[in-house]
This record gives sequence, C-alpha cells and structure tokens, in this order.
Amino acid sequence: MRHLVTLDDLSNYEIEQIFRLAAGMQSQLDTWAGICRSKLLATLFYEPSTRTRLSFESAMERLNGGTLGFADPGATSTTKGETLADTARMVTNYADIIVVRHNLAGSARVMAKYANIPVINGGDGSHTHPTQALTDLYTIIRRKEKVEGLSVGICGDLRYGRAAHSFALSVARFGGKLVHIAPEGLQMPPWVLTRLDQIHGQKPIEVETFQEVIDTLDVIYVNRLQEERLPPTVDIQEVRGSYLLNSAVMKNAKPDSMIMHPLPRVNELSYELDDDPRAAYFEQSANAVPIRMALISSLMGLEQLILTQPPQRVISKSVDQCQNTNCITNHETYLDLERETFNGTAKVNVCAYCGTLDE
Amino acid sequence: MRHLVTLDDLSNYEIEQIFRLAAGMQSQLDTWAGICRSKLLATLFYEPSTRTRLSFESAMERLNGGTLGFADPGATSTTKGETLADTARMVTNYADIIVVRHNLAGSARVMAKYANIPVINGGDGSHTHPTQALTDLYTIIRRKEKVEGLSVGICGDLRYGRAAHSFALSVARFGGKLVHIAPEGLQMPPWVLTRLDQIHGQKPIEVETFQEVIDTLDVIYVNRLQEERLPPTVDIQEVRGSYLLNSAVMKNAKPDSMIMHPLPRVNELSYELDDDPRAAYFEQSANAVPIRMALISSLMGLEQLILTQPPQRVISKSVDQCQNTNCITNHETYLDLERETFNGTAKVNVCAYCGTLDE
Amino acid sequence: MRHLVTLDDLSNYEIEQIFRLAAGMQSQLDTWAGICRSKLLATLFYEPSTRTRLSFESAMERLNGGTLGFADPGATSTTKGETLADTARMVTNYADIIVVRHNLAGSARVMAKYANIPVINGGDGSHTHPTQALTDLYTIIRRKEKVEGLSVGICGDLRYGRAAHSFALSVARFGGKLVHIAPEGLQMPPWVLTRLDQIHGQKPIEVETFQEVIDTLDVIYVNRLQEERLPPTVDIQEVRGSYLLNSAVMKNAKPDSMIMHPLPRVNELSYELDDDPRAAYFEQSANAVPIRMALISSLMGLEQLILTQPPQRVISKSVDQCQNTNCITNHETYLDLERETFNGTAKVNVCAYCGTLDE
Repeated sequence: MRHLVTLDDLSNYEIEQIFRLAAGMQSQLDTWAGICRSKLLATLFYEPSTRTRLSFESAMERLNGGTLGFADPGATSTTKGETLADTARMVTNYADIIVVRHNLAGSARVMAKYANIPVINGGDGSHTHPTQALTDLYTIIRRKEKVEGLSVGICGDLRYGRAAHSFALSVARFGGKLVHIAPEGLQMPPWVLTRLDQIHGQKPIEVETFQEVIDTLDVIYVNRLQEERLPPTVDIQEVRGSYLLNSAVMKNAKPDSMIMHPLPRVNELSYELDDDPRAAYFEQSANAVPIRMALISSLMGLEQLILTQPPQRVISKSVDQCQNTNCITNHETYLDLERETFNGTAKVNVCAYCGTLDE
Repeated sequence: MRHLVTLDDLSNYEIEQIFRLAAGMQSQLDTWAGICRSKLLATLFYEPSTRTRLSFESAMERLNGGTLGFADPGATSTTKGETLADTARMVTNYADIIVVRHNLAGSARVMAKYANIPVINGGDGSHTHPTQALTDLYTIIRRKEKVEGLSVGICGDLRYGRAAHSFALSVARFGGKLVHIAPEGLQMPPWVLTRLDQIHGQKPIEVETFQEVIDTLDVIYVNRLQEERLPPTVDIQEVRGSYLLNSAVMKNAKPDSMIMHPLPRVNELSYELDDDPRAAYFEQSANAVPIRMALISSLMGLEQLILTQPPQRVISKSVDQCQNTNCITNHETYLDLERETFNGTAKVNVCAYCGTLDE
Repeated sequence: MRHLVTLDDLSNYEIEQIFRLAAGMQSQLDTWAGICRSKLLATLFYEPSTRTRLSFESAMERLNGGTLGFADPGATSTTKGETLADTARMVTNYADIIVVRHNLAGSARVMAKYANIPVINGGDGSHTHPTQALTDLYTIIRRKEKVEGLSVGICGDLRYGRAAHSFALSVARFGGKLVHIAPEGLQMPPWVLTRLDQIHGQKPIEVETFQEVIDTLDVIYVNRLQEERLPPTVDIQEVRGSYLLNSAVMKNAKPDSMIMHPLPRVNELSYELDDDPRAAYFEQSANAVPIRMALISSLMGLEQLILTQPPQRVISKSVDQCQNTNCITNHETYLDLERETFNGTAKVNVCAYCGTLDE
C-alpha cells in the first residue's frame, strides 16, 4: 500500500513517472477516462478548502470515479471527539482512496497508518502540502524542461506556509537553487532549513525584499502574506509594499523568468501581471487536475508501472514527545511516537509525523 | 460561448426551442440520458440554496454528468477575499459548465466574463433569477399553451424578489399583461418598471390587495413576503392578512386560473389550496428539472440546433460608477464599468451588471 | 410504495431476505454493481452525520447510482420554515429514493407520507435508527448464525439513544434476551419497555453496572454515554468508571462473546480491546455498506423478490395530541394525528409518528 503523506514517500524517479502520466492525461484524456470507474475517492476536509477539494473531485470524476466526504468542519461534528484512527478505519469501508486536509501537522500520516486504502495528504497544518508541490514542480518542468540549475525565489509567509515548505524541499531535490524572500518573523522554519542543508547540501540565500534578487531569479514563487502573523515589531505598511509583485518590480526580472502563485491571491500579486507572458499561475492552477489524476491512478495501482521504486527511509520508535504543540501526536494519545533519521553530513532526527527536529 | 446571466441572453425563439427540448426530456428521458456523460457541472453557491442547487444537480445527474462545488458560505472561506474573476478562472479548470448563486447583483455576469466555460445565473442578489423564470413560463405554457394575452398577477415582495423581476420581464416579452400586487415599500423597482414601459410598452396595473383584481387574473403568482423588509409605517398584521392566498380569496378567482409559487412558501399560500385543480405550484416545482436539463445541454452545445439566434444587445464602456451599492462593480474594483442601452420610446441606459438605471 | 421508517415496516421474513442480499453483495459486488445506474439517492441530513451519510452515499455509488442532498443544517436554511411535506414533494422531483435524518421524532414518517418515492429513516430525534439496527442484527447473525436464545446486553444512554431503541426492539423480535445496563436517569424509556413486554413478552433484566452481568452475555453492545444528559444527582466520575468497557472488565466475559458499538466511541470503549478477537465493532462498521446497498435496492423494487411479505399493522386516526414535545406532530400543524395499536396481552396505543405511549 502506497500513500502520499509527504514527498519523501516518492522517489525522484517515481515523481517523474507521475509527471509523464499527467502529461499524457492532459493531452489525451479519453485514453484514461474510464480508469477509476466504480472507484470512490473520500474527500475528508477538516479545514475548509475550495481549490484543493474541487481539483481532487474534478480529477476523480474525469476518470469516471465517484466522490464522497465532507467539506467543512461543521459537517463533521459526529467525527469530533472521534480519533483519526477510527475515522480512517470507518472510511476504509466506504471508499477506495482518501484525501485528507487537517489543521494539525502529521494528521495525514495517522490516517495512512490506520486506513487500509491509499491516503493522500491534502495539507496538514503548517507542515506540508505535497500535491501542491507536485503541481508546482510539474509547471516549472513544462516551461523550463528541468528544475536543475534554476534559481528559484520563494517569497511571502515561509514560516507557516505548508505549500512553501513542500515546494522548497522538492525544488532542492531536483537540483534547483533556492532564494528565500521573507520578512522578519516569517522566515523558513529550522526543520526545512536543516533538511535543505543536511540532505540537499544547500544553504538558501535569505533576503527581505524582492529588489535585492529579482534580476537573478528564473522562478518567482509568490505566497500569501498573512499580516496577522507578523510580529508586532514589524511595520505592516512597509511589508505590504515590499511584498507586492507588480509590473514595476517585474521590470527588473529576467525576460524568461516565470511567476508562480498557488492562489488564491489577495494583495501580493497584482492583476496587471495577468497578461505578462511570464505569468505562469493560471497554467499552474490548470495543472492541478492532471497531476491529481495521475496521482490517484498511480496510488490505486491502476497504472502499475509508475510506483515501482519507493525511496528508502529510516523510521524507528521514539520515546520523546514531539516539541511541536500542533503535532497530532500531542493531541491523539494512542499514537506510537516515531522518529525519522536522515544521514546527511550530520545525522538529523525528526518527528516522523510532523518533521519537527528532535531537540 | 453562450451564458445565461439574464433572460436578455436568450431570444424568444431560443427560449421556445429550450421549452421544446425540455418537454422532450420530460416525456422521454432515455433518449437524452447519456448526453452529459463525462461532463461536470460546478455548483457555486455563495448563498445557501436547497431547491435551485438540488434541481441543477438532479438535472446534471439525470443526463449522466457529474457535479462538484460548494453549498454554503462556510465551505468557501478559501474563496473569501478571492475575486470572482480568479474563482471563475479556477473553476474553468475543473468543470464544463457553472451555475452560480451570489448575494451581490451582477456577480454571475462577472463569472461569465472570466470563465472559459458557460455560466448560468442561479440568482444574483436582488437582481434576477432567470432559470426560475424559464421554469415559470414553461409551466404557464404547458397549462395555457401561450402567455400572450393572459392577465398575470404577481404579488408579494416585488422590490427585492429576484424571481419576481425575471418573471415579470419574461411575461411581458411573451405578451402577457402584468398586474402587480404589493404593499407599500415592496413595489416593483424602477429598473423593472422602466423596462416594462420602454421595451415592452407596458405599464402594469399596480394594486395593494388581491381583492381588487382577483377575478380578472388568469395567472396568480404568489411570492414570499419577507416581513422584516416592510417599512416601519406598515401594519404587519394587516399586510399578513391581505397577502394570504386561501380558499376564501380563490372563490372569486376564475375557474380556469392557475396558482403559482416558486416555493418554499411560508404563510402566504394556504395548504387548503393544495388540492384545488388551479394549484400549479407542485407541477411548477417538477418542471424545474427538465428546464435545467434542456438549458445545460443547450449551453454546452450538446443540442446544437437550440441556441442559433442570439439576441442583439448594445453594451458599451462606461465611466460612471453604478449607483446600486449591492452591485458587484462596487465590490470588485478590477472590473470594467459597462452600460447597456435599450432603444424603446426613449433611450434607456442601465448598468450592464445589475440592471440599475443610469441617473 | 415501501418505506423504512421503523423496523415495523419490515416483516422478519423480509429482514432475512435483505440480509441474504447484503451477504451476496458483500461477497460478490460485481453481480449487482450496475443495479442503480441512472438512479439518484437524496441524502437529507438536517442533523450533521458523517457515518450514516457516507455509508449511504458509498452504498449508492457502489451500485453505480448518484447522490445529492445536504449535509448539515447550515446549508438547509432555505428549507427552514418549509414544512417537511413541501420538502418531500420537492425532492420527489429530484431523486428516486430519500434518506432523511432529522432532530424531531416522527419526521421520517412525514417525509414518507408526502414523498412519492421510497423514504429511509436515517435517525429521527431520540426515536429510532432502523438502518443501524439492521446492520447490528446482521453483524450478530454473521458471527453467531442466529439471534434466538442469545443474551444481549445493551449499555450506555438507553433513554435518548435512538440506535439502542431500534436495536433492543429488533433483538427481541428475533428471540434474543435483553439485559439493559444503564445509570439512573438514562434507562430505556417506557415506550420501548412496554413494547418489549406487550409485543415480545419480554421484561429485560435491568442493572446499573457491567459487573453484575458481564459473565452471562453473548453480545455486549456499548453505546456512548452523553454525560451532559445525566441527572445532577449522579456522580459523573463514578458513572464514567462504571461504563468503561476495557480488558479488565472483559476478563470476566465469555470467551465467545462479541463486543459491539455503533461508533464513534469516546471514552466508553477502550482501544486496548481493538485486538481482542471478541471485538466485532470494526466488522459492524464494515457491514453498514452492504446492508444499505441491499436496502436501497429492495425499496426501489430493483430486487423484486425481497419485499413481498409486508407486516400487518393497525393504524387509525386520532384526536389526541401526542405528549412528546419532540414529536413532529407538535411542530408541523397540518399533519393528521394517527395512532398505532398493538394487540399484545393488553392493547397498546402509541403515536404512529414517534411511538410515544398514549396516556
């Protein structure tokens, strides 16, 4: 049984195979349209979502499968007080594959442990959002052919942005060079930086404004900046100005660079760029469906040649409680504590659920 | 690409074609059952709805298509702060046709401008509700063969009732004579009255009670009366009594008249009329599904002979902000202002989004 | 037209036929997979539910039918103020079969009276939950071959627990002997006890703790104990301790007994029992889908040999208002009052909607 809890669940080879299948599905859907007939996708959204949920439902319906689930916390009151383990066991009886979004880090891993069907992480707290990262990576490769050697700037709220975490780690895995553009207090968290350093041998450039780096970037990945998360010492007006990508800023960018955004945007990405040929965010949005079609098919074993080279991982029992108060292990007490170990230049131990570094 | 934002998007010929297809689908569904196979309808309900949403979902499923979307504002929090333009672009990737309900007038028109797939207006603020009006008109024609020459009374909240607006305008287009029955403060708004006068050459009779006109009506169309919208000068008890259609009132009505109501009813339509042969509201409700089946099929081009004679319309850029504070153009600032011009006995300019008269 | 409002709508023979069909569907789904093609199930959940709703949706999708409906009260605001009769008439136009959950007792019966399609009760107030009881009974029969002669303990909140009511009555019908284990204030209500006595000739053993009876039970059916419903005179800590089923308690139970729970569980059923071979609650959960597949197919007449021996029932008009303030007849005033009469050792009259005893 294969799951997609984090991108560590897939080898680079497997990711490339998924991209090939997605491209085929995008250009010639009819070939695959019946592949999920009589199969059911459960969409378990403990946090509201429109984009992720609808793109999964669309992907499943395009393959002639069905969907069921819940779309918002209000409808899940009967699962409140129910553990994720029990919910996973229940849904195993109702569906053939699960996508879950939850406000706590590590929750998708719990689902995967207790469900007897494949589980896809649709976003878990501030941890990770691997299907967004797959879509992002695919979008870059469609425009640029490869990620290797590209200079990739990620800006906005890098601390709490789960999409930013998955994206940064996946860019590094495929050989892109990262530039982090974030205001004080919202920089990339230590667990991501340590992995980039120890596993991928990369210390990203960290700056606070576009201006310092805009002319060097091949990819400009804009994220929402949630102002309420800024520390009180920061001047909000100044930050707001600094993190608005508009035509003026893009004047200094490379002519063949590409602008990305996971959407929805609020104020950080100007509408005046929509017709700029460097704007890639609408095609990024369109790529969400074929990527999810390819992923669902692969995880369900319907395209058997795709997932044949799983990555090797070192996971062991742990006795230490995770330090992350938003980790699911601090909320559901029946869970076995586990750590994952990475052997880079130094040995790194992290919580196997939420990725937080052992102290 | 054809949309149904208001009934002005369809010519009378096209409406009649849709009715013919609906009648065929109603009597012999099997012939058309597979017409939407592998197609997806997005149901975007920013305002809660049971009847409109479920009848659209039923229509799509009956044609073997699929549906996805959101059913209430709570589940759409990720689209909050997202413009309708961006949501439209997003959903274009997920579905083949959209139905949208929204609390602001003109919002369906915005969706139609930015989506690359057909958009159906499922009700926009206090503006219009064209699929309800099509259902209503079809119901009259099924009983009376034609609308022309009929005396059609519309009663209840005519000011804010979007279904009443669409219905009145469509009755006039097909030659029916309107009688408006509404209490002080809830009469038909100027933008509807002006159109009826200038475009259709009709000044409706306006009265305040059933009693004055009940014996003259061929069609009695009852709407809910939302008491909280009555001006404080009005005696609620008195109004409540005056706007209850019951057996006593119907004693004075024509024996071949028909009673209509878009449902749900609250207190304005007595249960004792349910078995009166003049009650047409349950068949009106049943007609909702075949009308929506015919409409979906036609807009998606699956029945290519239906929408071949689009109406001519005069729409131009405008520089004046719309005076309607509930018009979408006063809430989403990236929109181009546009006006529509009607050449009746006098020239009438209205906001192209919400229909409000230029001042 | 057949409905499932309470288990009194089915004869024992018919229930056994449904079980046979469910077993066939469970072992060889392919044979039946297309049986509901082009059919629609309306899921009308006025109260939130995850388990019941998703298992019905899964059942319908497994049979290749479609689903539509609402999942929570928020999305049904347009039906607020609408009577159940009108909603039933509306949904008749949209679907082929209805499952309804509602907070008022008797509401499913109202739907069944006004819909022209089959209605299944998915739980009505504190009254009854017949599809859960069918699942429970089926689970016992799969393990124990028959219910007759088994000693069946039901514990927890028996007063308000609709699943407990249906289960107790169905166990008695099939010859099981009941033991009721409940704290003061949460014992089985008079309407259930009177039926057990008058119709099934059974006075259940009533105790307050597991310990008194655990070694005698063949089936141990645990229910949630909603602490906020306990009378103030009761010591909550003590009750909480007494109603926790764990390994220590199960040491004294029969080695071939079975543990059941309708799930979700909160604190009353310990995780340490999950690997006990007597734990039957996960298979009970898995049985929900085949039972609902068999029921949907049978009620829609798709398996015509199943429902051929309906029970005889005596229902007559009544003039007395039902004493149950949560009975739908006290909330929707257009309803005809009706009573059902059982001729046991004495004659028993009950409200035909909610089962409450005539006073």
